[in-house]
Amino acid sequence: MKVLTIAGVGPGDPSLLTLAAVEAIRESTVVSYPVSTRGGDSLAEKIASKWITKDKKKLPLYFPMVDDQNTLKSAWRVAGNDLMKMVDKGERVVFLAQGDISLFSTGSYLSKELEKYHPECVVKLIPGVTSFSAAAAKSKLPLAFQEEELLVLPVPDSYDELKSILSDAASKKRVVVLLKLGKKWEWVKLLLEELDLIKISIFAERIGFSDQQILRASDLPSGTRPYFSLLLIRQSWPLTMP
Amino acid sequence: MKVLTIAGVGPGDPSLLTLAAVEAIRESTVVSYPVSTRGGDSLAEKIASKWITKDKKKLPLYFPMVDDQNTLKSAWRVAGNDLMKMVDKGERVVFLAQGDISLFSTGSYLSKELEKYHPECVVKLIPGVTSFSAAAAKSKLPLAFQEEELLVLPVPDSYDELKSILSDAASKKRVVVLLKLGKKWEWVKLLLEELDLIKISIFAERIGFSDQQILRASDLPSGTRPYFSLLLIRQSWPLTMP
Repeated sequence: MKVLTIAGVGPGDPSLLTLAAVEAIRESTVVSYPVSTRGGDSLAEKIASKWITKDKKKLPLYFPMVDDQNTLKSAWRVAGNDLMKMVDKGERVVFLAQGDISLFSTGSYLSKELEKYHPECVVKLIPGVTSFSAAAAKSKLPLAFQEEELLVLPVPDSYDELKSILSDAASKKRVVVLLKLGKKWEWVKLLLEELDLIKISIFAERIGFSDQQILRASDLPSGTRPYFSLLLIRQSWPLTMP
Repeated sequence: MKVLTIAGVGPGDPSLLTLAAVEAIRESTVVSYPVSTRGGDSLAEKIASKWITKDKKKLPLYFPMVDDQNTLKSAWRVAGNDLMKMVDKGERVVFLAQGDISLFSTGSYLSKELEKYHPECVVKLIPGVTSFSAAAAKSKLPLAFQEEELLVLPVPDSYDELKSILSDAASKKRVVVLLKLGKKWEWVKLLLEELDLIKISIFAERIGFSDQQILRASDLPSGTRPYFSLLLIRQSWPLTMP
């Protein structure tokens, strides 16, 4: 039987790997992971590096960060075929993805690629801790109490769109997590100032790495932030609290 | 220095504990966890039971599932004091909560209780894998692709409210996770049928336990479901897919 495992390795801190992810790496002979530039580093590999012992073969797979449909489809096809070649040789293969494999993850595309073009392969998915759960823990800002809502999304493209999302959230006791802040911080900061949310918003980048930053958004200067940076925005608190 | 750890133990499968949670239990002398009835079972304790060795003292804490503000506040106060008594005795204390400690978790209330009434105590929070990430992995239904949104909330109280949430989600490429389905399944089922969403909705209960159920909502009969049951509702897929 053909089997392949896709495992989430959490947001950065190696101690946030699950026992299941560690076991999947231990049992593997081939460890695969995504890279966004050929020959470049992989965050997933870095997070799990302690468990990727020298006896493992490594298989970096190239997932370009572009919008072009054909380029993406071709990259997914190549990645799926490369993995299946290893499985066909009798290797025990695990593919590692940052965070959770179902949330904004290369793991989701890969899983769908294998389902469609290699349906004979049993794909086992191991969930992981998300970056926003880790950021919430570090900053002690709960994501949702019992009757609240949580909305997670990449920063939208426009000022007006984000303004409407935040105003909607305010009326619905909804905490908002904005991912992939990156280049948009410049104008997002202005909007948070306008809405008087800048002091209650929490910014986090490279959570769990040695150079992690978690601070109030009001303490963060303008300018471009890393791709993997996020904001937690809680506009209200429950009436019944300790 | 006074220190206390609050650790998420994931949704049910013991292999979804993080290395950090296991280490926190190993290093502890007292393992605490929530119970919703006095003398009753604790899911968090059950999930982590393999790691709660006989040398550990156990401290179940009672968190009643009621709405009354005074009853809740009093329970949080007692729990916080009981934990601090242990810490003051020099015990190394870890409190375990199901899933992630920032999402619909007793851990969030406890963390705020300690922050307010025992500010001298350093509280360390260890995030965990959520039930919906585990359900998504098991059912192979990605929670969000790159440009999508994820909304997580308890099932609202009314038919019309849920209808509006689902229609809003459809227009915004937003996947919806509905938690704590419990007694509401009866009317939620009718609504999903009305909106023609019953066949694409995934139902999950007791994820990771030996009696877990994950199935299409259309295959689930009417009637009350457990408190810890959920629905994943993805109404559309990205244009660019494998």
